[in-house]
Amino acid sequence: MHINHIGIPSDHPRAKSIYIREMLVNGFRRGLVVPEGLIAHGRGEAYDYLIGERTTKTAQRAIEAAAAMMLLSNRPVISVNGNTAALCPNTVVELAKVTGAAIEVNIFYRTEEREKAIKAELELHGAKKVLGVGSQASARIPQLQSERRRVDPDGIYAADTVLVPLEDGDRTEALTKMNKTVITIDLNPLSRTSRAANITIVDNVVRAMPILVESTRKLRSTLSLKKITDNFDNSKNLHESLKIIKGEVQ
Amino acid sequence: MHINHIGIPSDHPRAKSIYIREMLVNGFRRGLVVPEGLIAHGRGEAYDYLIGERTTKTAQRAIEAAAAMMLLSNRPVISVNGNTAALCPNTVVELAKVTGAAIEVNIFYRTEEREKAIKAELELHGAKKVLGVGSQASARIPQLQSERRRVDPDGIYAADTVLVPLEDGDRTEALTKMNKTVITIDLNPLSRTSRAANITIVDNVVRAMPILVESTRKLRSTLSLKKITDNFDNSKNLHESLKIIKGEVQ
Repeated sequence: MHINHIGIPSDHPRAKSIYIREMLVNGFRRGLVVPEGLIAHGRGEAYDYLIGERTTKTAQRAIEAAAAMMLLSNRPVISVNGNTAALCPNTVVELAKVTGAAIEVNIFYRTEEREKAIKAELELHGAKKVLGVGSQASARIPQLQSERRRVDPDGIYAADTVLVPLEDGDRTEALTKMNKTVITIDLNPLSRTSRAANITIVDNVVRAMPILVESTRKLRSTLSLKKITDNFDNSKNLHESLKIIKGEVQ
Repeated sequence: MHINHIGIPSDHPRAKSIYIREMLVNGFRRGLVVPEGLIAHGRGEAYDYLIGERTTKTAQRAIEAAAAMMLLSNRPVISVNGNTAALCPNTVVELAKVTGAAIEVNIFYRTEEREKAIKAELELHGAKKVLGVGSQASARIPQLQSERRRVDPDGIYAADTVLVPLEDGDRTEALTKMNKTVITIDLNPLSRTSRAANITIVDNVVRAMPILVESTRKLRSTLSLKKITDNFDNSKNLHESLKIIKGEVQ
């Protein structure tokens, strides 16, 4: 595997992590990602390192619950920011197809140029419709000050379940106050996002998304989806992820 | 404290961390920092969060040993990369003055433009001489493939002690193989840099540098510097930092 323009060799101890990093830097160069998004990715890298850069059993449980919840929902929406568009545009589109979810662009540092770049990236990977761009985002999440409050009245505003990979704490809290079910993918089990969400997948989005797609495919014909979501305990799951980070369990 | 153009309020739970982050993004906009540097900063943020965003007693011990080592050295050099120049140019210059150390620019993603921008930033903060820029960096660190191998024959190449804040593992290992004493500032006690260095300060460079300057000032007239460095055990210190991250000790 040759990795990038700076020629990191495939036997480099950090090759895989550097490869993902370069995907993001690439997304940055193409106008999808902002500088703050690069820093956020770095935080993720550190937590990923601590959980051993693998999808833990704890994360797998959360993924299964998330898959069941997406399938149970009437109006699921996948919220896509710059980092998500740079790292996994293909699996976002796949997941939308399998679950019937809408795709909506939602970014903290909002410019119409970047919204359009993210939309174009998703369309390049097969998205038929992308909500939340420009004047489409005419609804508002109450009690939220940042530009992330702007949402599509046909998308996040009307959704019963929102998948928000790589989200900020303020918006996660605001979405739960709107009585939406929030699913997040976040490598820090202590973050406000992780604690506020209903289902938190503590995993790298690059690893978790394909497993989530696979899981929804498997569960599509299952009748006991409600049992899966009912049995899932997010606090307990986060506590276990924290134990993994602390090296107390595998 | 009003923080930045996006108007993060001072009572925001992450205000201090966001302020430092914006210093770095600012450095990025001015051409000091590369995208990969932003990601590296994010990793640091995560580890800083885990140690409680404070200078621990363990870090203070390492800072004292580093101060003594700088004062004991015949040819100490402070190696400055983009992130260091963006975050603490003033304390780099102060430390050089107190210890008589040379200042040298050394960056992974080398362009003469960026080298000059870093040099200019240091000069703006009072640096009289900055080594390692352009053709000045004519010597090579053996067995190192990246552009960080290029060093100044009058600076890092001839140094007995090198302070490398925010360093990469490859170069730290290469410098120790050249029998130089390496002091680093790194928030990840498990990194190759932290493990390869002779003295590792597990702390945020923004907090550690002023304390290091203060410590060298205090120790300048001390006769027992050698005792301080001899009593310092880096492995033991790193082990304690790891315990703090795991929440086993304060």
